[in-house]
Amino acid sequence: MKFKAFVYVSLKSGYSDPEGDATAEALRGLGYGVEKVRASKAYQVTFEAKDRAAADELIEEMCKRLLTNPTKDDYRYELSEA
Amino acid sequence: MKFKAFVYVSLKSGYSDPEGDATAEALRGLGYGVEKVRASKAYQVTFEAKDRAAADELIEEMCKRLLTNPTKDDYRYELSEA
Repeated sequence: MKFKAFVYVSLKSGYSDPEGDATAEALRGLGYGVEKVRASKAYQVTFEAKDRAAADELIEEMCKRLLTNPTKDDYRYELSEA
Repeated sequence: MKFKAFVYVSLKSGYSDPEGDATAEALRGLGYGVEKVRASKAYQVTFEAKDRAAADELIEEMCKRLLTNPTKDDYRYELSEA
């Protein structure tokens, strides 16, 4: 079966996020009442797995081994059949 | 009122995505049956607006004016009260 996962990777709170800060500053410069921006990465991964439980396990592994840095990143994903 | 928007920015289909391709190749190298990866950016924006309709309009404007490049990017967002 084919699955699609949307993976969102963001810095753990406590880590400074210069890109987010710069984006917030730029939005304020344009006149928007922005309090805070956090910038993050997202991946849309299409992959094969034998069932949903296996797909969950696989995407979890991919996040830990390659897509995120568990020391400094938080991540979450949405999994659906493709 | 305070609102929080999650904005997801991805390349329009048709635009090549070298980062996604490299990520897919790396995941395959680790033994995962990955068909395709699309890499994208995400922003979590906390901002002030007088009501939900105004918040919708503001975040739409921020996307078009700064967060995305309408020529090459697709975007979507989820808006909620913060």
